[in-house]
Amino acid sequence: MILNTIKNVAIVGGTHGNEFTGVYLVKKFDRLPHLIQRSSLEVSTLFANPKAFEVNRRYIDRDLNRCFLRQDLENPTFSSYEDRQAKIINQKLGKKGAPKVDFIIDLHSTTANMKLTIILTTSHPFNLGLGAYLSCINPLVKICLLRSGVDSHVLSSICELGCVIEVGAIAQGVLNATLFQQTEALIQSILDYLEAHNQGRPLPVPSELTCYRYLEAIDYPRNEQGELQGMIHPHLQFKDYEPLNPGDPMFLTFDGEAIAYEGKSTVYPIFINEAAYYEKGIAMCLTERVTVQT
Amino acid sequence: MILNTIKNVAIVGGTHGNEFTGVYLVKKFDRLPHLIQRSSLEVSTLFANPKAFEVNRRYIDRDLNRCFLRQDLENPTFSSYEDRQAKIINQKLGKKGAPKVDFIIDLHSTTANMKLTIILTTSHPFNLGLGAYLSCINPLVKICLLRSGVDSHVLSSICELGCVIEVGAIAQGVLNATLFQQTEALIQSILDYLEAHNQGRPLPVPSELTCYRYLEAIDYPRNEQGELQGMIHPHLQFKDYEPLNPGDPMFLTFDGEAIAYEGKSTVYPIFINEAAYYEKGIAMCLTERVTVQT
Repeated sequence: MILNTIKNVAIVGGTHGNEFTGVYLVKKFDRLPHLIQRSSLEVSTLFANPKAFEVNRRYIDRDLNRCFLRQDLENPTFSSYEDRQAKIINQKLGKKGAPKVDFIIDLHSTTANMKLTIILTTSHPFNLGLGAYLSCINPLVKICLLRSGVDSHVLSSICELGCVIEVGAIAQGVLNATLFQQTEALIQSILDYLEAHNQGRPLPVPSELTCYRYLEAIDYPRNEQGELQGMIHPHLQFKDYEPLNPGDPMFLTFDGEAIAYEGKSTVYPIFINEAAYYEKGIAMCLTERVTVQT
Repeated sequence: MILNTIKNVAIVGGTHGNEFTGVYLVKKFDRLPHLIQRSSLEVSTLFANPKAFEVNRRYIDRDLNRCFLRQDLENPTFSSYEDRQAKIINQKLGKKGAPKVDFIIDLHSTTANMKLTIILTTSHPFNLGLGAYLSCINPLVKICLLRSGVDSHVLSSICELGCVIEVGAIAQGVLNATLFQQTEALIQSILDYLEAHNQGRPLPVPSELTCYRYLEAIDYPRNEQGELQGMIHPHLQFKDYEPLNPGDPMFLTFDGEAIAYEGKSTVYPIFINEAAYYEKGIAMCLTERVTVQT
């Protein structure tokens, strides 16, 4: 694969104000910048939503990580706190589609048991190679392909190359030392990979990558008023990335009735019981497990 | 033990708006009231902080479960949303010290791994007997004695008899089906215990009760500006109720340095890494394990 040098890298934390891992990693890197220095890279940090962090909420007005559609960034009538923050970030790192940075690492956490998930911004071969490398050196790493980068509304879509690190299970508003250290180690591995690429001694990449590709989002059972009627079934709770087969229980109603998965083929749910997705009408995202060539 | 009939029981949920277990149990009991009916009891439910639930936060203005000091309830200048709500609840269930209800069950959840914790409102012999009964029939049940009921600022302190059910580990803003069902079963056991008492055929109570008595709260390591400098040590995370000995690691700084417990005797930490306690300056509460006669 031919790719120019990757020079400017942005490590973003606190895109969601109540996901502390990224916030405190960015604070740490600002205090100890040598930790993220590499000879061929300019690595900067960005604390994306400090105001939401101050009040310990995901966002103030709306989810910052849904504010990066190009038309929204260019729309002057979008003026909520997060819309304005998105425009500032797009000025700093972007602009989207023609960015100043070459690679974005956006740090997140989830209440789902997603271990060390890497959500690749695009399926660009460079991203796939990185994903294959990371999942090869650490079996806790899972690689996801969600929506297409350029058309996406997430912060990392400013730039074609990059990823979200999505770590869990971790409650909102807390730090988990083990996951903090594992996230930090992942960042180090990514920077090492980029550095090795730049120096013409690329790190070894398996020829195939197993990853989880987004199929659809599933909502909780609700009544006509939209009120919850059930919960994630105990058999599925914390079972992100495990196969869900037709007929397997998905939900348990408050009255104790199991609701089965009625799809036609085996899927691999992720973001199971993510706290921030209740309001989005998402109980989990179904993915298919695919093998791609790197 | 001589005690009059317990007639009026209040089951309270949603004292904290982002602790969903209690909210949805109260909704369930309102839909299916026969579940909490007992021949000798009048059982009512109360959804304590619906406005906080609507916005999925612990509270709007201040922690409702810290608004029940008698002088605060009687102070007309205390007029935040939660202060007003506390006064309404005190009118409905209280007033504190001379309550209309005889027994309060207040439903909570925690991000700490506290399993099925019963925090007794007071160490009244009736409460102790109930605690001994519940911990005897279910080994997941742990009994805590925190501060004295009458002088306390928590909702359940309206009434001398009663308890908080504090269940975890569960993230804020999510339901966990297993813990939901276990909490519901605990409520059933409590109502059965009260009913049996009223009917003069009290359920068998062990003569001794092992419980965890509050000693002190410990804050995270912080710098002079009050900023966090570390996290719960991985060896202690999720280890509520396990012994912490002098010299055992308590915290891990962001730079990877372990900080040991420097007390003189073995203690039993609870509320380890509770999300809502970061702002209160509490990383955990230390307790001593004691045996009391019932």
